[in-house]
Amino acid sequence: MKNGSRRYTEKSIIIVGVGLIGGSIAAAVRKRFPECRVIGIGRNRERLEAACTRGLLTACSDQISTASIPEGSLGIVCLPVDQIAAAVLQLIDAGCELITDVGSVKASIYAALGNDSGRTFIGSHPIAGSEHTGFEHADSDLFVNRLCVVTPLHANAIKTARIVSFWKSIGSSVQEMSPDEHDRVLALTSHLPHIIAAVMSGCVAPEQLPFTGTGFRDMTRIAAGSASLWTSILLGNAKHCVESIDAAERLLQEFRNAIEAGDAACLKSLLDACAERRKLLE
Amino acid sequence: MKNGSRRYTEKSIIIVGVGLIGGSIAAAVRKRFPECRVIGIGRNRERLEAACTRGLLTACSDQISTASIPEGSLGIVCLPVDQIAAAVLQLIDAGCELITDVGSVKASIYAALGNDSGRTFIGSHPIAGSEHTGFEHADSDLFVNRLCVVTPLHANAIKTARIVSFWKSIGSSVQEMSPDEHDRVLALTSHLPHIIAAVMSGCVAPEQLPFTGTGFRDMTRIAAGSASLWTSILLGNAKHCVESIDAAERLLQEFRNAIEAGDAACLKSLLDACAERRKLLE
Repeated sequence: MKNGSRRYTEKSIIIVGVGLIGGSIAAAVRKRFPECRVIGIGRNRERLEAACTRGLLTACSDQISTASIPEGSLGIVCLPVDQIAAAVLQLIDAGCELITDVGSVKASIYAALGNDSGRTFIGSHPIAGSEHTGFEHADSDLFVNRLCVVTPLHANAIKTARIVSFWKSIGSSVQEMSPDEHDRVLALTSHLPHIIAAVMSGCVAPEQLPFTGTGFRDMTRIAAGSASLWTSILLGNAKHCVESIDAAERLLQEFRNAIEAGDAACLKSLLDACAERRKLLE
Repeated sequence: MKNGSRRYTEKSIIIVGVGLIGGSIAAAVRKRFPECRVIGIGRNRERLEAACTRGLLTACSDQISTASIPEGSLGIVCLPVDQIAAAVLQLIDAGCELITDVGSVKASIYAALGNDSGRTFIGSHPIAGSEHTGFEHADSDLFVNRLCVVTPLHANAIKTARIVSFWKSIGSSVQEMSPDEHDRVLALTSHLPHIIAAVMSGCVAPEQLPFTGTGFRDMTRIAAGSASLWTSILLGNAKHCVESIDAAERLLQEFRNAIEAGDAACLKSLLDACAERRKLLE
């Protein structure tokens, strides 16, 4: 089985929100496990039917209801972070056996669910994406060799193993972390970069843009992302985002002081340390 | 004549420092004007001879001297910014008629030259580059459709026109600016992005790097550049770099305040404004 490290596979999965990520999960499952039902749920029936026609979904529905959810289904909520908790609660009410999501924040979703719901929900965050949106850009290999963080709040080895197996079955590697630890790390590795890219874009006046090079283009590309999606993400992880901004600012001040003082040794040592850190990614 | 908007061409050019940029200028001239002599000057004779063998240079020398500089030559200094002024003074002493450079800072080079030397030197800054170094990566089309800023300090229409023609002859578009205005704009469009990319890299601990995605990689790529080159650039434009850092910090604080206050409307409006700015580049 290509990219699948286990024989285990789901019999039916429910994808709530069939956009780029939801569509890519659908495509990944359809390609690897053609016998698995893939049921899409969303508000726009026309779009859902287009996704069916394209072969991403085996069925679709415009509401979360007991009728649309086969027994034993795995639910995967692929909505913007501020809509995840409500959809999870609806899935629980409709009898969905186990639910995960793909949101970029975790602790605030568990908080919105309350403790009991946290037993049916185990959050996930696949670190994969694209600048595109919409299921038309779905990629069945989007998760291959990418890391997915799985964040159980309560010890539940069987349910956690099922979620971990699911991600591995579509090619991801998996790391388990607590929701809070996830949020602390991702504030630095994903949320702060978005803020910084936005700040960098905002500092250059329109008439100065012709004087930018490829470095500026590369570093600000993510700043063009959806402002409303990112508002939800940043406010859904506010405490850690503020801490990350403070850390960035302390380091920025070290650069500022070295430049203002004309301290070449200090500036070079700061640049060297940051360059060495970056080279670890190569 | 491909990419050349004028018939004018130099009879001999002197390239001091035959690395990626110097080598690409050599390649651009050799490809378009095979009758033009391209003389490389550098410290490492073996490397220079290799560049000759490769066809980038028609002659080379390991010193700047009257003997190595044909009458009427255009000199182009392609050294790190802290070595440019000394090389320009040597070229003037050796009788070079007109000199330009490719440095990322301008006012501090003019200051090091003094007023009189500023009449033989007209600084340039081609906004083009690559993450590679060395003439082995020379690209004869590196400057095609890229902007080159030409920064005359004194009004000298004939000499300025000659420099402008040179850059146009190898495919660049050209914008004239004063040295100080160049430094003010490039602090925001090039120097601040480098500092910000370094700060972003420095904020993520090595064990957190697996939790970064493509956005982080793209935005920190330039942080892996040479720390010593960038120390010279940032200290060579210290005043404007400090002002740029202060501007970035003010905007970063606006994000911080909106996130800490949970002010979705304010945060979305900040993100929207920055996203709109970035979209102007597409």
